[in-house]
Amino acid sequence: MTLAHGGGGSAMRDLIEEVFTGAFEPDGMEDQARLEAGALAEPGARLAFTTDSFVVSPVEFPGGDIGTLAVNGTVNDLAVGGARPLWLSAAFIIEEGTDFALLRRIVASMKGEAERAGVRIVTGDTKVVGRGAADRVFVTTSGVGVIPPGRDIAAAHIRPGDVAIVNGVLGDHGACILAARGDLALSSDLQSDCAGLGHLMEAILAAAPNARAARDCTRGGLASALNEMAEAAGVGIEIEETALPLRAEVKGTCELLGLDPLYLANEGRLVVFVPKAEAQATLAAMRAVDTGAGATIIGRATEGPAGQVTMRTLFGGSRIVDMLVGEQLPRIC
Amino acid sequence: MTLAHGGGGSAMRDLIEEVFTGAFEPDGMEDQARLEAGALAEPGARLAFTTDSFVVSPVEFPGGDIGTLAVNGTVNDLAVGGARPLWLSAAFIIEEGTDFALLRRIVASMKGEAERAGVRIVTGDTKVVGRGAADRVFVTTSGVGVIPPGRDIAAAHIRPGDVAIVNGVLGDHGACILAARGDLALSSDLQSDCAGLGHLMEAILAAAPNARAARDCTRGGLASALNEMAEAAGVGIEIEETALPLRAEVKGTCELLGLDPLYLANEGRLVVFVPKAEAQATLAAMRAVDTGAGATIIGRATEGPAGQVTMRTLFGGSRIVDMLVGEQLPRIC
Repeated sequence: MTLAHGGGGSAMRDLIEEVFTGAFEPDGMEDQARLEAGALAEPGARLAFTTDSFVVSPVEFPGGDIGTLAVNGTVNDLAVGGARPLWLSAAFIIEEGTDFALLRRIVASMKGEAERAGVRIVTGDTKVVGRGAADRVFVTTSGVGVIPPGRDIAAAHIRPGDVAIVNGVLGDHGACILAARGDLALSSDLQSDCAGLGHLMEAILAAAPNARAARDCTRGGLASALNEMAEAAGVGIEIEETALPLRAEVKGTCELLGLDPLYLANEGRLVVFVPKAEAQATLAAMRAVDTGAGATIIGRATEGPAGQVTMRTLFGGSRIVDMLVGEQLPRIC
Repeated sequence: MTLAHGGGGSAMRDLIEEVFTGAFEPDGMEDQARLEAGALAEPGARLAFTTDSFVVSPVEFPGGDIGTLAVNGTVNDLAVGGARPLWLSAAFIIEEGTDFALLRRIVASMKGEAERAGVRIVTGDTKVVGRGAADRVFVTTSGVGVIPPGRDIAAAHIRPGDVAIVNGVLGDHGACILAARGDLALSSDLQSDCAGLGHLMEAILAAAPNARAARDCTRGGLASALNEMAEAAGVGIEIEETALPLRAEVKGTCELLGLDPLYLANEGRLVVFVPKAEAQATLAAMRAVDTGAGATIIGRATEGPAGQVTMRTLFGGSRIVDMLVGEQLPRIC
């Protein structure tokens, strides 16, 4: 990759035609995508709009790469808010000297994940910067989706007594990236949990008509998601240490390094709050979807103290689970 | 700025609340913006969606900064396609150690430009990477707009005889960035032409109901925009060297450095093709808008050769104006 590939001229056009056009939309990625807005025309439908930059290091890791993350991260931001993901944009900042082959693998990942999620990547951009001005490839995706009429899930709706459910084991992505960096001499078979959660959210919302709110547990992990939800709802949240689904390998990594798995990043895990009466139906519906096979109840909302997350420990005690203060692991996504 | 500011925990929340929330939406930048889609509900309306990453160096320059570019670049991508810009997302990749004050200035620029353009910045993201893994700040904006029913402007609609109009002097942005880098020991009073062109495009479309197509002349300059348009329409395009609006200072810079002003980047300039019968009305309408004060006819579409752009020179000759092949100036936007 040379600076000319970002120059706006024919080298850039060749790059776009060779690497991007075939993989994404048949007509290439124009400056502007023009989309039939039929799904948005329904009275009461709302448009959902979200964006994330991805700077993960290493760019490729067991279970995925920066492209997998970029598509699923944005799909999931839409889905956990109750939106049906429709269209994605993809903007690449590429360091001069980056392998074309790497870029092709990333784009192929994006194409595959978009197909799985049922979204279209409809517009894009590429910039190339000199050596040392970026670290290989950064990808920024934005997503547009539609929130069907009458659907309104939000953290503020959580009520005391509601049940908290996660869709599978926690911390795999964080522990996998840690191992993949190599500087800790950890060897592991861990794979990132990176996955799109759109189909799972639709299954949840079909099974639990009164589902309150969901969050994906990315940067800052389950602990940060729960703290944000407790604060927005003005409730307490209590989780059970014995109920947390954790692989022995992730537990071991955390013990070795003094990390708390509650703060480890996930890229295919969400926590959803539903009324107690809908909890069993939600669990069954989640377990019928591949990304929800490991669904399990981890706790509940309580009267308070408002905004506080507590964990009942293995030994019967209770400890406060705070927001993450510093940085557990940079460039996790 | 420290890595903790990108960690997903409380330091990041403080950063978002302190720097972004006040400047952008009153409710802060949530993971997902939820927007009333009334403008899109009109039968026949289409949604326009676009994205661009900005990596300009230096980050601040006479007439603007990376924030000015990020808002106007995306607004203009929407506007030149006939869309009314509505909502923007903003994703920041920030190098560790970057000044908070710089970030605040960039965000203030974005707020001001968004207000001028009549768009709302409704969602965002921040990532922090280590020293040397990025060059201060990169900003990626995406934009959503609505194309009113029946409006359809596209390069493919250009017909022989159509008139090409630009909205002002060319190359100021490119020449200004060149001078601002300092390594050429150029001193100049040039300012970037960076500006939002949404209001200008609405004036053009009101005056020229049969306007064919418009492009903003960013990376690759006027020459690249015209080449793309000639190719898409299967027409020739002929421009007049004597008609090109260029400041003496920009001409001088180009002569000194062996650059061609046709390839210099602009960030507030567009070229629009209208039927000859609508050209005078278009000119008058453009000149009534501040960003169109310098509107002037520069050429016309011809029977061909298809896809070829030619320039009638000062001396009565004719030369082919090709796509830019290499890179005239990296990190111009």
